[in-house]
Amino acid sequence: MPEIDFWYSIGSTYTFLTVTRLPDWCAEYDVTVRWRPFNVRTIMSEQNNSPFAGKPTKTRYMWRDIERRAAKYGIHAKLPAPYPISDLPLANQVALLGMQEGWGEDFTQNLYRIWFDEGIEAGSESALSEALLRCQQDPRLNLSRARSPEIVAALAAETDQATKLGVFGAPSLVVRGEVFWGDDRLDDALSWARVGHVV
Amino acid sequence: MPEIDFWYSIGSTYTFLTVTRLPDWCAEYDVTVRWRPFNVRTIMSEQNNSPFAGKPTKTRYMWRDIERRAAKYGIHAKLPAPYPISDLPLANQVALLGMQEGWGEDFTQNLYRIWFDEGIEAGSESALSEALLRCQQDPRLNLSRARSPEIVAALAAETDQATKLGVFGAPSLVVRGEVFWGDDRLDDALSWARVGHVV
Repeated sequence: MPEIDFWYSIGSTYTFLTVTRLPDWCAEYDVTVRWRPFNVRTIMSEQNNSPFAGKPTKTRYMWRDIERRAAKYGIHAKLPAPYPISDLPLANQVALLGMQEGWGEDFTQNLYRIWFDEGIEAGSESALSEALLRCQQDPRLNLSRARSPEIVAALAAETDQATKLGVFGAPSLVVRGEVFWGDDRLDDALSWARVGHVV
Repeated sequence: MPEIDFWYSIGSTYTFLTVTRLPDWCAEYDVTVRWRPFNVRTIMSEQNNSPFAGKPTKTRYMWRDIERRAAKYGIHAKLPAPYPISDLPLANQVALLGMQEGWGEDFTQNLYRIWFDEGIEAGSESALSEALLRCQQDPRLNLSRARSPEIVAALAAETDQATKLGVFGAPSLVVRGEVFWGDDRLDDALSWARVGHVV
């Protein structure tokens, strides 16, 4: 089966559902997924695509939709979570560093839990530090490494790659160059990987 | 079971999927749905919500997503269809007139077929006239009636009602005041109507 790339940005609200349910979903369907943090804010800004800022009705709907779907998946959450987050690039730089070292998924899941269940804004140093601690990583050292020119450049390169693939929002699943946007397209992406069309 | 209101605007692209598959879907689940045309453009303009204008990447994705999902539902379409449509209010005024007289669903389905399968822009007089003919309605007479102050006011009243319910996009399903946005939320809406949560 072709690889499924899971492009996500910490800062995206619907991504909470995906990072939380993905492990069980992967086990259920016997599939592996490659986690790829990127900076969705860069792409949205370039593409003049601002899904929620200045749109209170749509924003209220988004929280309600996430609440209903979290309940559907048996996921606990305290909504609305603080939004938008402050330092989106830093959060994703830490995640990318973690992906290089094997603790990125664990970090991302812990950070979303801190953000969506404990109500601490995910771009804050306190949330990032706590998430690092929960995956046995030194906060001060890793926040410093995540701010290094190498990691900053690596996140920019991933963001470029996402843009080239046609990714414009998060979360997105990409299979053989085919983009599926949204937590609600996980099954479409899997179907595409398996049989080359959506069933 | 509580009533399910199907709020839609001719001019919305994803609504093509819903109006086309809704009759079979209603038969399969033994459910009735009340069709309510409104002017989504008024609401989007008021709420500074412009989902596709000036967003070529997102627009390309939208067509591809509709193509994949149309294939999933066995619906034929020639994509991309002409977009955006010109006279969105008029198209929905005709649909609303038709709802009052019993030919509104038939008209809407015919018009979407003309737009998405035959490539004629749905706000044009030629598309509207042809759709009217296909449901045995006189084009000239009904286009004139659809432009009357009564029907213009009726569409504005429905649009106000949609706004009050929290509808911000099309298609939307509303059940007991609960809004479900998008063709991909049909099953969530049905589940809400049946058991009061999303399963």
